[in-house]
Amino acid sequence: MKAYTSYTKEELTAELTALNNKYKEYQDQGLKFTMARGIPNVDQLAFSMPMMDILKEEDDYVSSDGVDARNYGDLMGIPEARKLFSEFLGIKPEETIVMGNASLNIMYDCMSRAMLKGVLGSEKPWCKYDKIKFICPVPGYDRHFTICEFLGIEMIPVKLTEWGPDMDAIEEIVKDECVKGIWCVPKYTNPYGGCYSDEAVRRLASMKTAANDFRIFWDNAYAHHYIYKDVNVLNILDECKKAGNPNRCYIFGSTSKVTFPGAGVAFFGASEENVEFMKKQLSVQSISWDKINMLRHVRFFKDMDGVKAQMDKHAAILRPKFDSVLNALDKELSGLDAGTWVKPDGGYFITYQTVNGCAKRVYALCKDCGLTMTDPGATHPYHNDPDDSYLRICPSYPSASELAKAIEIFILCVKIATVEKLLK
Amino acid sequence: MKAYTSYTKEELTAELTALNNKYKEYQDQGLKFTMARGIPNVDQLAFSMPMMDILKEEDDYVSSDGVDARNYGDLMGIPEARKLFSEFLGIKPEETIVMGNASLNIMYDCMSRAMLKGVLGSEKPWCKYDKIKFICPVPGYDRHFTICEFLGIEMIPVKLTEWGPDMDAIEEIVKDECVKGIWCVPKYTNPYGGCYSDEAVRRLASMKTAANDFRIFWDNAYAHHYIYKDVNVLNILDECKKAGNPNRCYIFGSTSKVTFPGAGVAFFGASEENVEFMKKQLSVQSISWDKINMLRHVRFFKDMDGVKAQMDKHAAILRPKFDSVLNALDKELSGLDAGTWVKPDGGYFITYQTVNGCAKRVYALCKDCGLTMTDPGATHPYHNDPDDSYLRICPSYPSASELAKAIEIFILCVKIATVEKLLK
Repeated sequence: MKAYTSYTKEELTAELTALNNKYKEYQDQGLKFTMARGIPNVDQLAFSMPMMDILKEEDDYVSSDGVDARNYGDLMGIPEARKLFSEFLGIKPEETIVMGNASLNIMYDCMSRAMLKGVLGSEKPWCKYDKIKFICPVPGYDRHFTICEFLGIEMIPVKLTEWGPDMDAIEEIVKDECVKGIWCVPKYTNPYGGCYSDEAVRRLASMKTAANDFRIFWDNAYAHHYIYKDVNVLNILDECKKAGNPNRCYIFGSTSKVTFPGAGVAFFGASEENVEFMKKQLSVQSISWDKINMLRHVRFFKDMDGVKAQMDKHAAILRPKFDSVLNALDKELSGLDAGTWVKPDGGYFITYQTVNGCAKRVYALCKDCGLTMTDPGATHPYHNDPDDSYLRICPSYPSASELAKAIEIFILCVKIATVEKLLK
Repeated sequence: MKAYTSYTKEELTAELTALNNKYKEYQDQGLKFTMARGIPNVDQLAFSMPMMDILKEEDDYVSSDGVDARNYGDLMGIPEARKLFSEFLGIKPEETIVMGNASLNIMYDCMSRAMLKGVLGSEKPWCKYDKIKFICPVPGYDRHFTICEFLGIEMIPVKLTEWGPDMDAIEEIVKDECVKGIWCVPKYTNPYGGCYSDEAVRRLASMKTAANDFRIFWDNAYAHHYIYKDVNVLNILDECKKAGNPNRCYIFGSTSKVTFPGAGVAFFGASEENVEFMKKQLSVQSISWDKINMLRHVRFFKDMDGVKAQMDKHAAILRPKFDSVLNALDKELSGLDAGTWVKPDGGYFITYQTVNGCAKRVYALCKDCGLTMTDPGATHPYHNDPDDSYLRICPSYPSASELAKAIEIFILCVKIATVEKLLK
């Protein structure tokens, strides 16, 4: 394909006219699509329906330690749930707490407790510092950034590549003792889709930090969410232990994109010492979480083979959707100098990086044509993408036919914005 | 009955010998009971079992606003749940947020957010004050006090009577602008069992507070949990509105003792302005709560008549248990000058007030005889009951026969401790 950058001004003008005509045609169709959030499709929800009537008799509600799941008790989660989800995270049951319906809530809670009380080893609550800072690999997950912004934690963006964040930059930044932690989505990163390399994981676990209560917030949201390839990311807790920093990492996970978003179970993993410390804090805010839902999940999956079988089904639904987006991008935008993207191995997103200064324009064009995309800037702290370049594509929710149309519109808008930019 | 206080020393000594012999007999039986926590009995849990398979087809999972309860969405709760539980609290749906599995968690969250960010109308976050204080009517609920202690909020105890807290004292205390709020269990108070009088509610709603961001934490845990009499407690939100302080109260409730403790739904009520303010904060920590469980609850109860029918069943189970405790206390301790108690109209507790200086001894005697009671001091901030007098009796969990035996032991221990005291 001939790159737009090699077009003459006349060619660009003619192209823009043609593109705008096509755009007008789409607009006239009054379409309404969303590729804004990483939401499972209704077909994916159906996989978990057998879970809903798996508990039948009163006896089914008794957990393996004899606790009636319908009553108070087992603050750390029922033993069989701690076992299953510790395996999910690749750690030990004693290192795992199974809690409520969403890992976002656990992450917020960990951060707010750190602010109010500090973490294990803190000299004082984080809110007692004049300023504390968190490292935020970008592009990243907007809800992580919102937590920091809400709590007044200064965010330091660091570039994320296909292989993890810029470790050289991070190793410099953590020499500042105000830097208390880093947000990581290590596997099928949100929204990049890449995976942290062994080197990145090892350097995060072993780097020398000025703050001795530094925490890696390891949001392993897509731990088993392969689409094309189940990539092996090193276990952060193992690496932290090996490096002599066993308490450095907090691991988060949930079944939101395994069973039901917001109605699954969420879990936390860390060193036993961290878990014991947290147990005392959790006992202030909770008597116990929803153990009935834990039982449903454990009885449904039985073991990690059950989870993996379910993830195969999800992959089978998501793969053709990702194929459809990636093939269209390849076919329509390859070699056009209109931006770049990376084929992810799993997760829920494709990141499209426009020519600098075009992301907002693409978003606006899409919107005016009935296609809702994630807000531009959402991938960056304070909604500030200095290059105005990152856009997140979420192919999971629309049906196949909706998605095909949506991606046509997206590509058209990318082309228009790019040509407009070159004509300026 | 002849009061112990009128016994001669010889009579007391003889009585103590007789009591100790009886105690030894119980001890030899190797009994093991608990009256430590307000936990529904297994028979009560059975009432809600039909709820567990009430959602059958995929269509059953769609809420009234068309949102699939199995997916993300509806941060404030599904409309039908907001409607039902607003009626539960006696307020409007727009004044109600339906959330997770436990109101304790909501209360903790409200307090921790107030510390980190302040409430609507705060000049600054509460943690930025050198000191803030909360009023704690005593006897009260230990978990309320633990939240304050954890967050470093100084607690000011105020005496609770059968008709509510000492309002004269409270109206003085709130002249201090460091006093930011009060914990209240207005109906069938934990553990007193009394109800706030109309006067108490009106004075709380209308009193002049130095802090203009004063909050009443109104834990309406037993809103419909009558045993003998459904008492009408004035609606705090109505009274706050009438008094021109619409944003003063936060109301909390849950179905923990309606359906399943820890696996029910919990809800928050406040002025629309408070609710809007809170919505923004909640969006930082959550995408949505477990809407499937909300749907189960709404479909099961249908309306407040359904809730009330269920509460009648609970009362029918609890009444003979409370009868058994109260009759035994009346029969064995009336006129003995060995302490006092009040017959509650509802709730989960009976407060036994020993002769000063005897509560810890009674607890220890019970424990050594296999009967676990709530820790003495749990009814007071910092576990400090200056009179060493308050004990909480929780009759709900044991079976009828266990309970009969447990209360025999309790009464015996009260007698021993009282006589010992008089002999000192």
